[in-house]
Amino acid sequence: MAVVTFNDVVNASNQISQYLHKTEVFTSEQADKKTGRCLYFKTENLQKSGSFKARGALNAVLKAKEKNIEINGVVTHSSGNHGQALAWAASVCSLPCYVVVPQTAPAVKKNAILSYGAELVECGLEPTDRYEACEKLEKEKNLEFIPPYDHVDVIAGQGTIGLEFLNQVPKLDAIFIPVSGGGMSAGIAIATKAIKPSIKIFLVTPKGKKLEECLRTGTRPWEGPPQYLDTIADGIRLQQTGYITTPILTDLVEKEVFEMSDEEMIEGMKFIFERMKLVIEAASGAAVAAAFSQKFRDMDNSIKNVGVILCGGNVDIDALPWY
Amino acid sequence: MAVVTFNDVVNASNQISQYLHKTEVFTSEQADKKTGRCLYFKTENLQKSGSFKARGALNAVLKAKEKNIEINGVVTHSSGNHGQALAWAASVCSLPCYVVVPQTAPAVKKNAILSYGAELVECGLEPTDRYEACEKLEKEKNLEFIPPYDHVDVIAGQGTIGLEFLNQVPKLDAIFIPVSGGGMSAGIAIATKAIKPSIKIFLVTPKGKKLEECLRTGTRPWEGPPQYLDTIADGIRLQQTGYITTPILTDLVEKEVFEMSDEEMIEGMKFIFERMKLVIEAASGAAVAAAFSQKFRDMDNSIKNVGVILCGGNVDIDALPWY
Repeated sequence: MAVVTFNDVVNASNQISQYLHKTEVFTSEQADKKTGRCLYFKTENLQKSGSFKARGALNAVLKAKEKNIEINGVVTHSSGNHGQALAWAASVCSLPCYVVVPQTAPAVKKNAILSYGAELVECGLEPTDRYEACEKLEKEKNLEFIPPYDHVDVIAGQGTIGLEFLNQVPKLDAIFIPVSGGGMSAGIAIATKAIKPSIKIFLVTPKGKKLEECLRTGTRPWEGPPQYLDTIADGIRLQQTGYITTPILTDLVEKEVFEMSDEEMIEGMKFIFERMKLVIEAASGAAVAAAFSQKFRDMDNSIKNVGVILCGGNVDIDALPWY
Repeated sequence: MAVVTFNDVVNASNQISQYLHKTEVFTSEQADKKTGRCLYFKTENLQKSGSFKARGALNAVLKAKEKNIEINGVVTHSSGNHGQALAWAASVCSLPCYVVVPQTAPAVKKNAILSYGAELVECGLEPTDRYEACEKLEKEKNLEFIPPYDHVDVIAGQGTIGLEFLNQVPKLDAIFIPVSGGGMSAGIAIATKAIKPSIKIFLVTPKGKKLEECLRTGTRPWEGPPQYLDTIADGIRLQQTGYITTPILTDLVEKEVFEMSDEEMIEGMKFIFERMKLVIEAASGAAVAAAFSQKFRDMDNSIKNVGVILCGGNVDIDALPWY
């Protein structure tokens, strides 16, 4: 099985840091008063390309270039944050980038990808269409396929958030992380648990993901093909975590998963908009809501210093979810 | 006439900096591409109390306490950023704070003031009502009245933005500043012109302020009592600049004033929300719009490095102006 080590994360950090923002950690007296704890917000919404995905994408592109100097470019299927991040990362590396998106993808997302200089390739609406289109391009043009999460270099890249965060706030007792495929949470868990084994990694998801069942049983509880969850948080709507990421999570993170409703995510978003003057997307709002939740309030008070990953800020400001 | 010196600004900086954020300067490749210049955004929306007003208010409260150790508290009339800032500043100094607001002030603004521990005093709707209520409280309770802009200690406090900004970006050729009563622009002009006489200070206002006429003629073109302009930018809706601030501006700033429409301010706001993931109010959007304007595009290309003051982020997120 492919494994990602602490050393991979350190190497990723050495490779990518010069191109990325060392995102600030924000605090809020109001948030601390609300929770009775000390909260630290890692502002990956202010990262290049508007989300943490820039880290993993850039690490994967640099590694791909290192392994194959004749590479003609990179390709992925994602109309979301990974698509934008890969387009940005490829432009940093002066490589062509192709992003396969369904014909129905919203114009705002397509434009964001185009603005980083990538080429859009439209495909049909069936889930299998995107994989086929991707594979076809990969072979035809001799491209490297960079998947959004289930890839060792992507996971190592996302892990640099954990390195940075513990360096900025060494006293962190726990971190709340929104989870879709699990690339970011696996990377952060590897990085932070190696430095500070006592740290608790709490995963945050929309309703219906069955991730707690997965973590507690060590099996994949999902049946049939990958599904999307019914949630406003398009950044974390995948139901299943990956084949590389899941065993890492099962091994390293807390078994209690924080499942958040749309209403709770919106409350989390609004708090950050109003109090911190930051634009965040619903997946970030989910992590805020988890840190504010009754479930966490009922947990051990010795968990004093709490990190919250504001994973991205790519929300359509003409369609904010509370309007 | 009361005059504010560079030294006053330096003293203010020494007094207040420990309580305030040294706000970051953001850049944007997209903004630079759009303008053909290098833009630097000073994020006072991330300042304590959500706007630059925290600087002047805190300096004035500290000075008031220094002059009169027996002071019983401070008072002002402002349901906007100055009211919130004074409430915050008084709480830092452990002094009571009274804020006079009209009965009709929106709940969101009243709650913000209350959340910093100030006491609200409601008054009638006539402009004179607030002055009378303020004066009455001042005498009854032995309070110091801290006006929003026409006050030397307030101006000196706002000037610390200029000190900080030139320290962060010494190569600045010009700065765009939104203007209401003129406290911030006067302070920044005093600070930056003393360090770098070649720097150009451009003022930004809503339509109908007649500020360019004022600057060009050196007279006050406004007739009758103070009026509010018809604009979405509640932070800069005063028509007249102050009696202390106006001569400072006439002396130090460029004569060309940038008058922005509501539509232009909204465009400026949306750019910052979408590209920088920051929540800003319409007054900040006005400064962004001025830097993006055709009027500035037509100006001397030697003005290369351009500062833009994002003066505040106190916007009602349930009523964003583009909805």
